[in-house]
Amino acid sequence: MYLCGKLQDIPGMLSRNQIKFIQSLARKKGRAEHGCFVAEGNKLVEDTLSAFECHMLIATPRWWQQHPAASAAIAVEVSHDELARVSQLTTPQDVIAVYRIPQQQLCREQLYNTLSLMLDTVQDPGNLGTIIRIADWMGINHIICSPETADVYNPKVVQASMGALARVALHYTPLQPFLESIGNDIPLYGTFLDGDNIYDMPLTSHGIIVMGNEGNGISSALEPYIKHRLYIPNYPPGAVTSESLNVAVATAITCAEFRRRTCGGTSIRTSKP
Amino acid sequence: MYLCGKLQDIPGMLSRNQIKFIQSLARKKGRAEHGCFVAEGNKLVEDTLSAFECHMLIATPRWWQQHPAASAAIAVEVSHDELARVSQLTTPQDVIAVYRIPQQQLCREQLYNTLSLMLDTVQDPGNLGTIIRIADWMGINHIICSPETADVYNPKVVQASMGALARVALHYTPLQPFLESIGNDIPLYGTFLDGDNIYDMPLTSHGIIVMGNEGNGISSALEPYIKHRLYIPNYPPGAVTSESLNVAVATAITCAEFRRRTCGGTSIRTSKP
Repeated sequence: MYLCGKLQDIPGMLSRNQIKFIQSLARKKGRAEHGCFVAEGNKLVEDTLSAFECHMLIATPRWWQQHPAASAAIAVEVSHDELARVSQLTTPQDVIAVYRIPQQQLCREQLYNTLSLMLDTVQDPGNLGTIIRIADWMGINHIICSPETADVYNPKVVQASMGALARVALHYTPLQPFLESIGNDIPLYGTFLDGDNIYDMPLTSHGIIVMGNEGNGISSALEPYIKHRLYIPNYPPGAVTSESLNVAVATAITCAEFRRRTCGGTSIRTSKP
Repeated sequence: MYLCGKLQDIPGMLSRNQIKFIQSLARKKGRAEHGCFVAEGNKLVEDTLSAFECHMLIATPRWWQQHPAASAAIAVEVSHDELARVSQLTTPQDVIAVYRIPQQQLCREQLYNTLSLMLDTVQDPGNLGTIIRIADWMGINHIICSPETADVYNPKVVQASMGALARVALHYTPLQPFLESIGNDIPLYGTFLDGDNIYDMPLTSHGIIVMGNEGNGISSALEPYIKHRLYIPNYPPGAVTSESLNVAVATAITCAEFRRRTCGGTSIRTSKP
């Protein structure tokens, strides 16, 4: 039983086709075919419901009671056990939303006066989700991703982004032609293990920060385009330490430093009390 | 077939008891019972082999050939398929090490002139592993954890720490009595959503930075002890954004700012070119 936009009082069942449809969205192929993705959980759906076109809402009677104004093309009231059948979470909550994948267009001009991120094949969905959350916190609205970067609508990315997806747009495109096309119009920054200490380098309030793959860093094809090679210093300088920082961690420290320069507090230096 | 310290030429088998033993170390109870933990993968074992007492090394002929000097109380040469039987990795590599859990003692005096971390129930093993890696990068040698924090010898933590475990010591203890015992001798910092902008606050080169639980932050029982309440500002100030940053990300930004003050480059402010 399902209802179009209106809800019946009696908890219903998901049809076999609906179950197949929702499960297919866990895979990239299924998402491409249907143009939809899944977001799960009370907080996440609350945070994203107004940002996307909602195709389907599957929720328990309790959730519907708490959200009388919620609507979707297809609205289904189900028992918690029924919802758990299609949930991808270890601990299913009260609601699953199926959203239409938005058609996002990127005009290069949008990047001119703002700070953006570029991801050169960040493959771990958890890392991508965390980076989207960092971008949101740091007021970065656009992330340009290589086609090999994890898919933003992968359920693990959606869950890890924790609603930041509602405010940050991801654009997938081959990066080298893209960098060719912008020429010298936008300053390009990247983090490299042999770069210059980020705290010694001038940083602009606009530009693109390129972050590389988990294992291999920024690919050699992109390196020549990146004029500003940054390094996050370890402490104390020269000490034996880990080979590198996790890519989401490096993204966080880099973005925070860009924003501190533009907008942070006064420059206080440490003095031992 | 297994060998004590010496290796035979013919790849052998793991006994049923050995398999049971290794598998038991995936659980905290098993680790407590045997006083051992597992580290897997060529890079990780290479990075940690000299830091821990090695009880058992299980590796393929190729690995043994490449590491003729490697030794353990029990050294076993196995085929890749045989190794995969006890591996916890999706893509098993060439070596599994079983280390003795070291007996680490923490003297309060060790914390007086250094920067340390305190984790108030960080429960996700991936977050803990990432934080250990951040600590290593930032020259932080001690992490004091509440008993409810994820176990450092959980295989997921060991793998996520990527060898940083060799240089960072974790100490599990009830935090409130510990904070009582140090009194006012060490400055205590914590991140709070209602704290003061970290970039406006004086930071010392020594002290303890307290990080809270993924969902609930720092517990109310610990709050009164923390004099310095820090906040990582979002950008632009006051904008609608995510509810919070991931705990490992917040740890990274906070530690990086402490180290920048003490040791970072010169204070360059942004100017739009």
